[in-house]
Amino acid sequence: MELHVKREHSLSGQYPNRARMLISCPDGPGIVAAVSQFLYQHGANIVQSDQYTMDPDGGMFFMRVEFDLPKLAERIDEVRSVFSGVAERFKMNWQIFNVSQKKRLAIFVSKEDHCLVELLWQWQAGDLDADIALVVSNHTDMQAYVESFGIPFHHIPVTADTKAEAEQHQLKVIGDDIDVIILARYMQIISPSFIEHYRHRIINIHHSFLPAFVGGKPYAQAYQRGVKIIGATAHYVTEELDGGPIIEQDVQRVSHSDDVNELKRIGRTIERVVLARAVKWHIEDRILVHHNKTVVFN
Amino acid sequence: MELHVKREHSLSGQYPNRARMLISCPDGPGIVAAVSQFLYQHGANIVQSDQYTMDPDGGMFFMRVEFDLPKLAERIDEVRSVFSGVAERFKMNWQIFNVSQKKRLAIFVSKEDHCLVELLWQWQAGDLDADIALVVSNHTDMQAYVESFGIPFHHIPVTADTKAEAEQHQLKVIGDDIDVIILARYMQIISPSFIEHYRHRIINIHHSFLPAFVGGKPYAQAYQRGVKIIGATAHYVTEELDGGPIIEQDVQRVSHSDDVNELKRIGRTIERVVLARAVKWHIEDRILVHHNKTVVFN
Amino acid sequence: MELHVKREHSLSGQYPNRARMLISCPDGPGIVAAVSQFLYQHGANIVQSDQYTMDPDGGMFFMRVEFDLPKLAERIDEVRSVFSGVAERFKMNWQIFNVSQKKRLAIFVSKEDHCLVELLWQWQAGDLDADIALVVSNHTDMQAYVESFGIPFHHIPVTADTKAEAEQHQLKVIGDDIDVIILARYMQIISPSFIEHYRHRIINIHHSFLPAFVGGKPYAQAYQRGVKIIGATAHYVTEELDGGPIIEQDVQRVSHSDDVNELKRIGRTIERVVLARAVKWHIEDRILVHHNKTVVFN
Amino acid sequence: MELHVKREHSLSGQYPNRARMLISCPDGPGIVAAVSQFLYQHGANIVQSDQYTMDPDGGMFFMRVEFDLPKLAERIDEVRSVFSGVAERFKMNWQIFNVSQKKRLAIFVSKEDHCLVELLWQWQAGDLDADIALVVSNHTDMQAYVESFGIPFHHIPVTADTKAEAEQHQLKVIGDDIDVIILARYMQIISPSFIEHYRHRIINIHHSFLPAFVGGKPYAQAYQRGVKIIGATAHYVTEELDGGPIIEQDVQRVSHSDDVNELKRIGRTIERVVLARAVKWHIEDRILVHHNKTVVFN
Repeated sequence: MELHVKREHSLSGQYPNRARMLISCPDGPGIVAAVSQFLYQHGANIVQSDQYTMDPDGGMFFMRVEFDLPKLAERIDEVRSVFSGVAERFKMNWQIFNVSQKKRLAIFVSKEDHCLVELLWQWQAGDLDADIALVVSNHTDMQAYVESFGIPFHHIPVTADTKAEAEQHQLKVIGDDIDVIILARYMQIISPSFIEHYRHRIINIHHSFLPAFVGGKPYAQAYQRGVKIIGATAHYVTEELDGGPIIEQDVQRVSHSDDVNELKRIGRTIERVVLARAVKWHIEDRILVHHNKTVVFN
Repeated sequence: MELHVKREHSLSGQYPNRARMLISCPDGPGIVAAVSQFLYQHGANIVQSDQYTMDPDGGMFFMRVEFDLPKLAERIDEVRSVFSGVAERFKMNWQIFNVSQKKRLAIFVSKEDHCLVELLWQWQAGDLDADIALVVSNHTDMQAYVESFGIPFHHIPVTADTKAEAEQHQLKVIGDDIDVIILARYMQIISPSFIEHYRHRIINIHHSFLPAFVGGKPYAQAYQRGVKIIGATAHYVTEELDGGPIIEQDVQRVSHSDDVNELKRIGRTIERVVLARAVKWHIEDRILVHHNKTVVFN
Repeated sequence: MELHVKREHSLSGQYPNRARMLISCPDGPGIVAAVSQFLYQHGANIVQSDQYTMDPDGGMFFMRVEFDLPKLAERIDEVRSVFSGVAERFKMNWQIFNVSQKKRLAIFVSKEDHCLVELLWQWQAGDLDADIALVVSNHTDMQAYVESFGIPFHHIPVTADTKAEAEQHQLKVIGDDIDVIILARYMQIISPSFIEHYRHRIINIHHSFLPAFVGGKPYAQAYQRGVKIIGATAHYVTEELDGGPIIEQDVQRVSHSDDVNELKRIGRTIERVVLARAVKWHIEDRILVHHNKTVVFN
Repeated sequence: MELHVKREHSLSGQYPNRARMLISCPDGPGIVAAVSQFLYQHGANIVQSDQYTMDPDGGMFFMRVEFDLPKLAERIDEVRSVFSGVAERFKMNWQIFNVSQKKRLAIFVSKEDHCLVELLWQWQAGDLDADIALVVSNHTDMQAYVESFGIPFHHIPVTADTKAEAEQHQLKVIGDDIDVIILARYMQIISPSFIEHYRHRIINIHHSFLPAFVGGKPYAQAYQRGVKIIGATAHYVTEELDGGPIIEQDVQRVSHSDDVNELKRIGRTIERVVLARAVKWHIEDRILVHHNKTVVFN
């Protein structure tokens, strides 16, 4: 008898010809017209489109379009090629994703299991439409659990002395085709070169309502300060500790009677939910990063 | 010395050439392309655009576009006229609004003042970008307060016997150029013919989390049922009591120690906030109604 | 290598002499004085005490006291015996619990796994200070998963014809020492005689914000009505379907773009959190039931 | 015709013999017994009692008791006198309040009116059971509005040079019998000697979710950091800027499309609600301060 029943109600299966386009560029007239005209001429049907112009930052234009295009798989390269002409005209940063090609995730974890458990449960329930390619950990606590899902687990210990080679080892097991790395309470600082390699593709969950309580002991700090609400923050990792673009935050009310352990217990549920939302939005191509902020179309 | 200092940081002043377009129609290829092409050709710059396709209900397409068009005031009639050709092609329900032409509101109130006070405060603070044309009440309690803002107040008593002529009187004082009627805790049933006259243009605030606790005593019912959360609901008025399309809802946690009066006190703040949000979205043309549901682009 | 690492940071271990007292009785002078005097004379130290008098319902008094009493285990019978005199004087309903004697839970589940997974995870993380004695299901889907925690799993199929004997079978496997039954999305109606047997000791999670959307298809109803917030409700099971005393509710904002499947997906997280809170409060003796309402001291 | 109809559904009127007792002291056996015995012997009936022991901080005991005592007004001095013996035994900090003697408030305001408007509306609605003795402002914008409620308004300008004498002037108009000072968006730093004079009796509303965004431009900082939730914090004023004991916080979700002005607009409603809650809890004697934290019994 199987331990975990993986269910599939993924978009990939339902909509084999669905694609998504992410665009950011300086604002100007005619962008929406050009994009929608392009899609119309290629026989695409737009099923969802979101657009936002950030005024104060010098007029940046952001757009996400979800569309169905017959025979997508065989035509997507040609579509990308033709669109690059449109893109050049408007100086666009752009990407077109084939929804059927699931994103590949690597999850990093240490000893705390709640965020990993949540991601695996949502994945197994069919709510995270992605492939979990592997789990990397500096401890072995989660090995049996991860492997019971049929997911490869790599134990790569990290010490102050071996940090650089540990990261080399991590990069090697990850390989070349990972779309996003999830730090599911991975309690190690990532080096700048590693971050550079996966710019805006490493999602961390920080166990406080940033920018309050940066660093390693946020619940103790929250208790000390006597806050009445605690929170968690999912963000892309940058060189500044807990300072990267915020993707999602959520909070929960607490009271004077909650000690540090109780804050941690309450916090675990917020962390789980916030990280899972951020991962879901990333794999659904809902997030655009501009400077140190995110535009999230959801 | 003036009692109320009306502040203006309205959109009308800031963006004299801004317009909004609301569209709903059966889904089909080319709609976004046609609309954005039309706007581009008329020299409009799209500043915000939202779109949603409701699948299960047979493919309805909804769109809201906010755009700037040079010399809007003198050109808007021509724009509307030309667009009607596009609209016909896709069987659109559509409207184009000149943002500078503020919507005109009539507020109906009985004795409870909190929702009226909130609307007047938000209006006076410049947060409700509309004109409050008049206040109608079946009581005189609020007369001095309303008139201190320089807003006309009409006292129209309503009894079981005089209901029909009271509504005639109301229609007369309202006149022909009111865009939306706000029932700010107006404790009278509106007749079907009155509703028909202002279809989807009468917003009511109901003091419960609908569809729970329809009717006149929701807080007493909530207390009786022992709910742990109470709420309020803003909806368009239809012939079915408290059954119209829901625009917005919000809630607040309560406990066993809150009696009916405390529920009412807590509820007043939810009601105020929910009604004000619904009114703001209506006057910013963010709401589309389809059957008994709303699409809210916010 | 073990699959699940059960962690223990339970109160039982930390505070071996801790007890809890729950009292409800008609209000009157001297109750708090009598109870606290009694505890003081027996050498107990009160660590937490909550009290509430429900006025409108004819003056009912509710109290929860948490206290440490040296050599609790050997003295608790005597304490109970002496206290019964105090209790009689004030016509009290009362119970004294030894915190070290963990409550024993039976979990009923059908095919939906999210609530079960949450309870098992919280239990394994040491956050639910109870023993999970067994899991009963009318399906076998969860068997391997439950047994991987070392928890007995009983498959008892239920059909329209075999309902009565299935319940007999359930009662037999449950035995005599189960404190509370958790219906973790168990999709069968419980018979009145079964309910009577476990009066106010069966906790159900209903997948709507009760009293809205009673019955089996709440998310479909919520979608149909176009609500802007969905919720879940944990309640004690009574003879009236979804009508028992509400323990806890929580909600989440949704929008027009969430279809029924998306409502279900969002709802699963609310259901998990709400049920787990209710179970935690029950096993921590925080809930008193009066008529059809709960007093929750948390 | 009157402009503002002051309604009275105050506790003072309803329960003329109601009193409240606030206690904090080192924890130890027999405290609850001694207090409840004392009250019982004086013929008091406890209607609400809350108690909390803060473990990690060396065992501090906090208690709030609400009770009815026949002929309270004539007996309260004697009760206080006798209780001081009990208090001495347990080294208590304690106060006994006669609920009928309403607390007297002074409100300080600058130009932003929303917090003042909220407090006056709640007061006039009978929801703030206190006397608003006077309003002090460094500007005249609110004078007519405040005076329309029949409340004295004192315009005391403050400049860098005149700060010290302005505070002297403020102290003089406040007089000796003000219980609590509310800084309802009063944009001036209070001097240490002024703070000392009203230790834990000055409530400020800070327009961020502290400890994030201390200082004068929190919404600009929040926008810059790209947070997904904004908040407000009510706290007692201490010598450390925005660093005093937190009474209450609340938050609201925002998105990338909310610019600084929109954050301010959304924030105004959070500020209003949070400040009003803190003031309500203070005048209902629900707050105890210990070191830099609050215990709030609500």
